[in-house]
Amino acid sequence: MTSLDVPSGEPASVATPAPGDPRLARLSLNQRTTARWSVREAVEGCLRSGIPAIGLWREPVADTGLAKACRIIGASGLRVSSLCRGGFLTEPGAAAGSRAISSNQRAIEEAAALGARCLVMVVGGLPAGSRDLPDARRRVADRITELAAYAAERGVQLALEPMNPIFCADRGVLSTLSQTLDLAERFPVEQVGVTVDTFHVWWDPDVAAMIDRAGARIVACQVCDWITPLPADTLLSRGMMGDGHIDFRSLMTMLGRAGYAGDIEVEILNADVWAADPDAVVGTLIRRYVEHVLVA
Amino acid sequence: MTSLDVPSGEPASVATPAPGDPRLARLSLNQRTTARWSVREAVEGCLRSGIPAIGLWREPVADTGLAKACRIIGASGLRVSSLCRGGFLTEPGAAAGSRAISSNQRAIEEAAALGARCLVMVVGGLPAGSRDLPDARRRVADRITELAAYAAERGVQLALEPMNPIFCADRGVLSTLSQTLDLAERFPVEQVGVTVDTFHVWWDPDVAAMIDRAGARIVACQVCDWITPLPADTLLSRGMMGDGHIDFRSLMTMLGRAGYAGDIEVEILNADVWAADPDAVVGTLIRRYVEHVLVA
Repeated sequence: MTSLDVPSGEPASVATPAPGDPRLARLSLNQRTTARWSVREAVEGCLRSGIPAIGLWREPVADTGLAKACRIIGASGLRVSSLCRGGFLTEPGAAAGSRAISSNQRAIEEAAALGARCLVMVVGGLPAGSRDLPDARRRVADRITELAAYAAERGVQLALEPMNPIFCADRGVLSTLSQTLDLAERFPVEQVGVTVDTFHVWWDPDVAAMIDRAGARIVACQVCDWITPLPADTLLSRGMMGDGHIDFRSLMTMLGRAGYAGDIEVEILNADVWAADPDAVVGTLIRRYVEHVLVA
Repeated sequence: MTSLDVPSGEPASVATPAPGDPRLARLSLNQRTTARWSVREAVEGCLRSGIPAIGLWREPVADTGLAKACRIIGASGLRVSSLCRGGFLTEPGAAAGSRAISSNQRAIEEAAALGARCLVMVVGGLPAGSRDLPDARRRVADRITELAAYAAERGVQLALEPMNPIFCADRGVLSTLSQTLDLAERFPVEQVGVTVDTFHVWWDPDVAAMIDRAGARIVACQVCDWITPLPADTLLSRGMMGDGHIDFRSLMTMLGRAGYAGDIEVEILNADVWAADPDAVVGTLIRRYVEHVLVA
């Protein structure tokens, strides 16, 4: 189901929209989709193709240097739809807790400097050797409590990301939007919101009701497809929109009804996508976005 | 994390209980765990090791012949904790629907003939080319409605199995116990119950509340572990208890509180387990069951 490195081989049912096309007004390139591009290259790729927003990652920002990345972003005129990522809050003990809080405080400061709409929070999986899921979830709640005000004081909203249960053990113990809202709603909305990523929530029987409940808590939206057979490395198992099973338009319609009018980030962690020419990937994702995701 | 083909290499923290040990009173060998054994071999393996119950699969039963399988089971004195599996109800159209109903009626008759406690229902994933998950879920409900009375008239309870969302696209569109109970509760309990499989439900933030809600609807319990990294073939990604991240005792305690006192089937679909000597696998699973699953 992957035709990603041969974008010209796919059915050309949609012509690539040109820069300035209003259909691209809410599209954002999550930097991880074009993983081999630096911040500057990703920004230039967005500008060449008419994508008006970018989702940044901390590691390539650090590679570029924060101050320089801020200058590149500032000069580009691109919106920063999110910074990925904070989180990893589940390790037990005071020392691990302090390290996690410090690291997230740095992430919050970076998000503020970059003018990011939010900091996406991947909360972490079970600590090594632990099978105590309720305990890990309590630790997430406690540490979000420590970070929420710090973030809001710097103008950064934390965007808790529920993750597909496939990642419950090793990435994120927040597994559903319902559970994530139970936590987010303990805080003022300007402190803690949620990320809706189609890969993580598409299967949820309650997704329509929970997107409706989320309303103004939704501060980030990420899209990629669920493909089968699932690639062997589950961390790189995301598919290009249209290659898999997700009904994006239905989910986008739910988000619209809930009042979400923000950016829609394409975030695809996939070895085949990373192996392909980034400009070709961007061309494909723009067409696929228009064809499968965009709601009129 | 797999030490399955060298059971003697694992820490011998528990001596293998001998046949007749009361700690094995609720243990059941799901036949798929020792996939290369015929019905007769699996029955003999249970008798040798003191496992008092077996979960059968339709395919090996057909290989043996239903009548002969019934004689083997009858003579063994083993309980049949379940027959796996009915389901696959999501294909659209009247012809596909008729085929699915017929196949499930045969499965119900086989379960009745074998004296199985229930027929485990894996309801099926998205039809080929479809992204309409609500529609597939409606079709499951409609076809369960067609089958429920037919099953109960033959003394067979349908045991709807919520499946880990990893299988939503290609195996089972019932994704949570909550959703599965919403469907099961439309029918009398003697017609439709649920299967609780630790692999499928362990991550669910609502699992405690939903097991409590399920109560007498719980007619089958299956155990295996969630291991990381997940094996490349997701259909064979189940782990031996103790090799992964699941807190079995907590889940078994919840089941006990909900009134479930039935058999606990060990069902492990895993290429390494299948490659190992079946008697060694049975020895390992008995020890691991006592060490990780059994609640005093």
